[in-house]
Parts: sequence; structure tokens; C-alpha cells
Amino acid sequence: MKTLTVALGERSYPIYIGANLLSQTELFTRHIQSKQVVVVTNETVAPLYLEKVLAHLSGYQVESVILRDGEQFKTLDSLNLIFDQLLASKFSRNATLIALGGGVIGDMGGFAAACYQRGITFIQIPTTLLAQVDSSVGGKTGVNHPFGKNMIGAFYQPQVVIADVDVLDTLDDRQLAAGLAEVIKYGLIRNLDFFVWLEENIEALLKRDKTALTYAIEQSCLMKADVVAEDEHEGGVRATLNLGHTFGHAIETGMGYGCYLHGEAVAIGTCLAADLSQRKGFLNSNDVARIIALFERANLPVKSPTELSIERFIDLMAVDKKNVDGAIRVILLEAIGKATLPMSIDAESLTQTLQTYGR
Amino acid sequence: MKTLTVALGERSYPIYIGANLLSQTELFTRHIQSKQVVVVTNETVAPLYLEKVLAHLSGYQVESVILRDGEQFKTLDSLNLIFDQLLASKFSRNATLIALGGGVIGDMGGFAAACYQRGITFIQIPTTLLAQVDSSVGGKTGVNHPFGKNMIGAFYQPQVVIADVDVLDTLDDRQLAAGLAEVIKYGLIRNLDFFVWLEENIEALLKRDKTALTYAIEQSCLMKADVVAEDEHEGGVRATLNLGHTFGHAIETGMGYGCYLHGEAVAIGTCLAADLSQRKGFLNSNDVARIIALFERANLPVKSPTELSIERFIDLMAVDKKNVDGAIRVILLEAIGKATLPMSIDAESLTQTLQTYGR
Repeated sequence: MKTLTVALGERSYPIYIGANLLSQTELFTRHIQSKQVVVVTNETVAPLYLEKVLAHLSGYQVESVILRDGEQFKTLDSLNLIFDQLLASKFSRNATLIALGGGVIGDMGGFAAACYQRGITFIQIPTTLLAQVDSSVGGKTGVNHPFGKNMIGAFYQPQVVIADVDVLDTLDDRQLAAGLAEVIKYGLIRNLDFFVWLEENIEALLKRDKTALTYAIEQSCLMKADVVAEDEHEGGVRATLNLGHTFGHAIETGMGYGCYLHGEAVAIGTCLAADLSQRKGFLNSNDVARIIALFERANLPVKSPTELSIERFIDLMAVDKKNVDGAIRVILLEAIGKATLPMSIDAESLTQTLQTYGR
Repeated sequence: MKTLTVALGERSYPIYIGANLLSQTELFTRHIQSKQVVVVTNETVAPLYLEKVLAHLSGYQVESVILRDGEQFKTLDSLNLIFDQLLASKFSRNATLIALGGGVIGDMGGFAAACYQRGITFIQIPTTLLAQVDSSVGGKTGVNHPFGKNMIGAFYQPQVVIADVDVLDTLDDRQLAAGLAEVIKYGLIRNLDFFVWLEENIEALLKRDKTALTYAIEQSCLMKADVVAEDEHEGGVRATLNLGHTFGHAIETGMGYGCYLHGEAVAIGTCLAADLSQRKGFLNSNDVARIIALFERANLPVKSPTELSIERFIDLMAVDKKNVDGAIRVILLEAIGKATLPMSIDAESLTQTLQTYGR
């Protein structure tokens, strides 16, 4: 087992990465100070791993909340189901909430933990590659709004992240690929060597080679932890983690939550950002081709859905957390391995990218 | 104009208290760094003061959200109305939210500001005595749940609190009295001299003598600011501000939100806490009579509603943020002017208080 640390002063916490972690009672109990524990999960994950987690909690007052599976259920209504159960069971402010699932469960569970009685203890057990490499680390929590992705939420750090690589055995191929989109992102924004390693190992990752997967998760979490420690509330460098996300969120919102997986939308969005980066004179056409090729080898979509008109696409991008006074800003690439901070984008370049690439 | 400071390091902020503050453009604009401003208010306050506030904001992109008036609308649904409008207007993360109203509007506006894009700038303009002396200061925000008051929320500090005593001219008598309940609370929990001053000046306050009201607001805000600076997240002394609130919240939830004003429920709750304090050997019967007498002179209810059975009352108290692992804890008085920290209460004493007092 590897232990990384997200260094945030008195709110610092460990990320455990390794095999067979879900079987180790002590990993759980050392982070639970209360008698009351609620496990929030979904209908897909519950049959696979809920019993395994509950087995460690025989001495506690335990509740389970099993939500429906999918981005379309990442809503205030689902959040309310968690609150209903916590209150019906008279859970106190010293209770602990465990989010057992992928990014949707982690984001919602974290937001529920942030808001319930203004904040209870929160533990992340990510069960998808995407959650293990990205969403479970760093304290971004929230739900979607029909007009925009992750528009309602809180910064709320977990007490611990337990990333058991064995759970990836039960992940379907589409979910695995979606996770790789965020892994590739780390190489693109801050680590050329890691990008090259991914080019050399993408097939091993798709074949679920444990050594390769573990390395990719560790490297991703290391980079995420560094960025979050430097800029917890996204005043600066943390925004680079949003490469491809302004486009991606527009696709997710515009096509209807759940149509594209988050990682799939990010893959397309990153290819669009690469194209825009070339238009701005940062990348050359070889760089862009190389980026697209890696996403394609990872079985990820790279073309924008034709159902979204350019006008609608740009309108959706105008609702984004990086925007200032309503003006669209995106992350671009200066080179493979180096992202820019958010840049204001003129409508013309944006239109060109959306017109000429990916349709 | 008096300026007090809530000392919270880089999140410190001023409380302005005085007459005619709502006419001073500069008081507003110095705290607004964005082009986009939303004013959240309700249908009672809007006709009185919304235009006056909007007059300062001619250079901004301004939206107004006018919610229904009353505790029964302090819900996630109302919160969603704010999010809908912010997103429809493409408000960015650097936008400013102004809460113009009493405690309900302040709590909801603050929680909306805390959650919208994970946090936007927040300004409090309290228009009730209760909000000016208590709820607008200290960053407790949130909404109610059918099972419990203020159960969903965040600690989120405003940028500034602007308390214009002139707005109290339009407050109805019942709202004025409700605010006095929290004023009396400050004397009870930490300041015997202030309690004595209130005994001498309660009629002047009820007659809305501006000098007396301004003094009472300043003293209350000074105490609140001190307590919040010492213990922002209620790990200790801040809980004393909850004197009477465990009982009071149970009354509000049990009778239906909006039936009793918050201050009215707190008045009853404080009389119950005083009775319980006597049972525990802290107060003598003279103290208890003196406390009840002051609430009565302030035209506040002092008897628990007979509609709530004792069993139901205790069940409602089991959902409270001060509870630990589900066990009920309340604030008691060691003496007039000195509160205890949260104390676990046995069901027998609690039952006796609910049986013998106030029915």
C-alpha cells in the first residue's frame, strides 16, 4: 500500500492506494471517531462492495443510502434523500459519511457531508478509475443543475481517500476508458514524461495490468495532491485541472446528464482545447494529432456531438465556474505537459474550433 | 455610524450599525468587486427597501430574487429558485449576492452564496431586529428540513453586515418582540449588567427609542462578534448562543415552521432552559421568575404549546446539532449572565421540566 498526503495544514489527509484495501478493517476504523456511520452508494456498487464495507462497521450505528446510478441523478433531490435518512435516524453532527462509488457518489456524498448540520466527517472510497485518479481527491463536491454542471456545491475535504485497485476488476470497459481521460489530462497539463509513459502503456492500462494501473493512479494522485495543496480554492493553478472541462461540461449539460460519461466529454473537450491551442499559436499540428491519437487509442470519443449547434454550445460554455463577469475563459495548452491559466476566448476562434474540428 | 469587526483573520469583516445607512452608496460599492450583483429579498421587504438598494447599483448587472415571506419557505426549493435565476442570468463565480431581509432571507441568501459555484461574495443587509442582533453576524447559513430546523447549511461569512436601525420603523410589533428574545439571550449567557440594563429599558425598546435600540444592537453584535471570533465553527463557547434553541427549534419544527417566530420559540425555550437550570441546582426560583418576567414584559410567549406532547417534544429535541451520537444536549444557565457549555440531559429531568413548566 502506498500512502500519499494532501497537505492542507490541519485539514491534511492521506490517500491510500493499493490492492485489497477494502478488506482491512483498521484502515476504516482509524478514521471514524463517531458511533454513527452512513454509507452512501448506488444500486450498481451496492451489490458488489457494500457488504464488504459494512463488515468493518459492526460496532457502529450504521445506515446505508443506495441512490440510483448515473450523472442524471446527481441532483438536489438525491441529496435530499440522504438528508431524509440521516434525520430520520437522528444522526448527529459528529457522524461519519462514507461515499462508496464513482465520481457522482463522491461528489454528492461529499456535498451532503458538507451541508448536513453544516459539516460532518467524510470518507471517500472511490470505485471507478475516474474517481480514484481525480474526483475523490481535493474536496470539490456538489450537484448538477439543469443549466450547468457542478454549479451547486462546496469545497469540503475528506478525512481519508481509500483507493483499492482491486475494485477496478468489476468496472466496465467504458468506465475504465472514461477514467483514462483524466489520467491523460495530468500528462497534458503538467508532465510530458507521464504523457510519453501513457503513450507506451495505454494498451497495458486497457488490459487492466495492475502494475500499470497502480502506477497511473499514484502519479495522478501525486499531481492532484500537489495542485490542491498549492491552490485549494482554485484561485490559480488548480484551474489547469479543468483542461477540456469547459467544453466537456457543455457537452454533458447540452446532451443531457448521463448521455456522455464525464471522462468521455472531457476527452472530446480536451481535443477541442488542443485545436484551440493550435489556433492561438501554442501547439503545432503534430502535437494536436498526437493528443487525439492517444485518446482514440484509449477508446474515447474525440469528436463533438453533431446534435449540439455551435450557438447552443457557446451558450452552454457561458455558464462555467472559470468565467469572470460572464465572459468565457478556458484552459489551453502551451505545449504537451504545460497548461495555461484560464484565458478569455474570442467568439470567433471558439466558433472556428467548433466548426472545423470534430464535426 | 459605529463599525464593529468580526475578527476572523483574512475573513474578518465589518458590521456597520447606524441610522440612514441604506442611503449611502459608498457603503455598498466598497464591498462589491464584481459587475454582477443579485439581491435576494422577500415579498414583504421588497416593496419597502428593494428600490433603495437597487439605486446604488446602476452601474452593475443586477438581478433581484423575491421569495415568499416566512420560515416555512426556508427550504431547498426556495434555494433552487435563487440558483435558477443566477444560472439563467449566467452569473459568474465572482458575482455578489446581497441578502436584504430578516433571518430567513439572510440564512438562505448566505447558503445560496456559499453553494453557488462553491462560493460567491455575500453581503448581509438585515431588516429585522433579530437579524441585526444575531442571525446576520457569524456566518451560520442554511435551510430547514421537515424533520429539523437549520439542518442543512454551511458556515459562510459575509463580506460586510449593514445594519440600518431606521428599517426597524417598518417592523411590526411581533417581529420587534421576537428580536428582543435574542437580545435578552445575550444578557443571560454572558452579561449580567446588560441583562439589568434590559430590565430597565425594555419599555424604551418596545417604544422603538432609537438610542436604546442602537445601544442594544451594538452590545448584542459586540458579544456575537467576540464569540464568533473565538469559536467560529462551534467547537465550544459558540454553543452558548444556543441557549433556549434546542427547545425552541423543537417548537418551531413540531408546530410547523412559521407558526411561531424564531424569537418567540427561543423565548419559550429559554424559560424551559431556566426551569431545567433550577432543577439542576444552578438557578434559584427568584432567578427563574426574573427571567420569565423580562420575556413577558417584552410581550413574548413563555409557555410551551400544549399541542406538543412531551414524547413528541423530546423526540424533536433528539434532532439537534449540539447532540453527540444521538444524545440530547442543551445549554443551561449557571447564573444570570453565565451559560454552561452543552450538557447531556437525562430524560427524567427533561420530562419534569416539560410537565411542570409552561403547560
